[in-house]
Amino acid sequence: MTIKTASILVIGDEILSGRTKDKNIGWLAEQLNEMGIDLIEARVIADGEDTIIRHVTDLSQATDYLFTSGGIGPTHDDITTASVAKAFGKAVIRHPEAVRRLLAHYEGTDIEFNEARQKMADIPEDAHLIDNPVSAAPGFQLENVYVMAGVPSIMQAMFEGLKDQLEGGQKRTRITVQCAIGEGTIATIMGGTSEAFPGVSVGSYPWFKPGQFGTAVVLTGRDAAQTQAAAESLAKQVRDEGFGAEILAPGQDH
Amino acid sequence: MTIKTASILVIGDEILSGRTKDKNIGWLAEQLNEMGIDLIEARVIADGEDTIIRHVTDLSQATDYLFTSGGIGPTHDDITTASVAKAFGKAVIRHPEAVRRLLAHYEGTDIEFNEARQKMADIPEDAHLIDNPVSAAPGFQLENVYVMAGVPSIMQAMFEGLKDQLEGGQKRTRITVQCAIGEGTIATIMGGTSEAFPGVSVGSYPWFKPGQFGTAVVLTGRDAAQTQAAAESLAKQVRDEGFGAEILAPGQDH
Repeated sequence: MTIKTASILVIGDEILSGRTKDKNIGWLAEQLNEMGIDLIEARVIADGEDTIIRHVTDLSQATDYLFTSGGIGPTHDDITTASVAKAFGKAVIRHPEAVRRLLAHYEGTDIEFNEARQKMADIPEDAHLIDNPVSAAPGFQLENVYVMAGVPSIMQAMFEGLKDQLEGGQKRTRITVQCAIGEGTIATIMGGTSEAFPGVSVGSYPWFKPGQFGTAVVLTGRDAAQTQAAAESLAKQVRDEGFGAEILAPGQDH
Repeated sequence: MTIKTASILVIGDEILSGRTKDKNIGWLAEQLNEMGIDLIEARVIADGEDTIIRHVTDLSQATDYLFTSGGIGPTHDDITTASVAKAFGKAVIRHPEAVRRLLAHYEGTDIEFNEARQKMADIPEDAHLIDNPVSAAPGFQLENVYVMAGVPSIMQAMFEGLKDQLEGGQKRTRITVQCAIGEGTIATIMGGTSEAFPGVSVGSYPWFKPGQFGTAVVLTGRDAAQTQAAAESLAKQVRDEGFGAEILAPGQDH
């Protein structure tokens, strides 16, 4: 089975100014990893038409799926929809189903469905709507690009609704070996394990507490048996050097 | 005065897998904004030599400063130093001053200055060391690229030490107008203000609490008087529509 690749494009001046801290990259990264889709790259860019067009073109060509967040609200700087449409040479239309959903959402409130809010029903032609169970205004899918809101709760709800359409690969097996040894001491063993088990990736996370230190070594691979063998080999080598090493049961590692 | 531009490159498979959540983009974004340097773009990429070389080349050409984080530790997947050197056609040398600092750091501990740890003294020729007051292993500056550790506390300490060398621009004035009005209702006023005051950027942050909602409008500009005038004009228009609008004093807004 071919593993699908993905990229993320976070669109918004407020992230680049530091005023708002991005939470979407980390959340989506976890989801995609869980589904067996390889996240290749994430970018944070400004709300500028040329900028958005350039990065949407780049990343939609480089990966199987591109997920964007931000810039689809009602204000003047919400230009993601128009820019993504332009990147694919599509016109933007006022989408009847999107209008219907927004009208239903505002019905019975004293919120006016004014021109600014109507803009949230503008969708590129040939795009498919992405449901927004939080605040109605939909995202959309155009070609391999999934355009979602920037507000984390809305983005997450949108992704939960669309993720069944994505083609996931085989989930990776992940095994943590907790070692009572410094990262610099275990580095050679890790490098050797990485070479001996080419399908297994070996990452290290050193930690310090008063009076204690150690390194969590995380082994990940598509092949569960290979990954287990790599973990056992690494743990044995650490013990042979006279240090403690414990292979954690799944779920114990965070 | 020309405003300097910057980009950030976060290097690390552990961020793309979702295991570790990046904190460096948000922190650096705040620092740069505070200094009057324009952060143009941030990217998160994998620990791959070709990948690092390509993005370092791209971003170091596109912006005045490039800040990288991650991949300068002792393990086999710490390949940032070698890759950045290659991007600039430089050799990597074992740097005597870096060796001295690491030796001094490990002296009197039972940590062995083994081959893996010695790798942290490998620095591209012609690079300047960046001090690491936390764990000694230095970062480095090569051309307009500042290579720092991935661990947030170390990256922050490194940046604090180097930031006086950066050429900051005029800090932007930022004024928040707290409006008792929905984002969709105020959108037209915001768009008009943005057009009437071209040097002032106008962003909106809608918020909801039980029984209450509103929009924080944030105006930022290099010209303090212009930004103030834009804030007053916006607040007046909101009040003229019959809604509340309060210009917050600096420091009240977060």
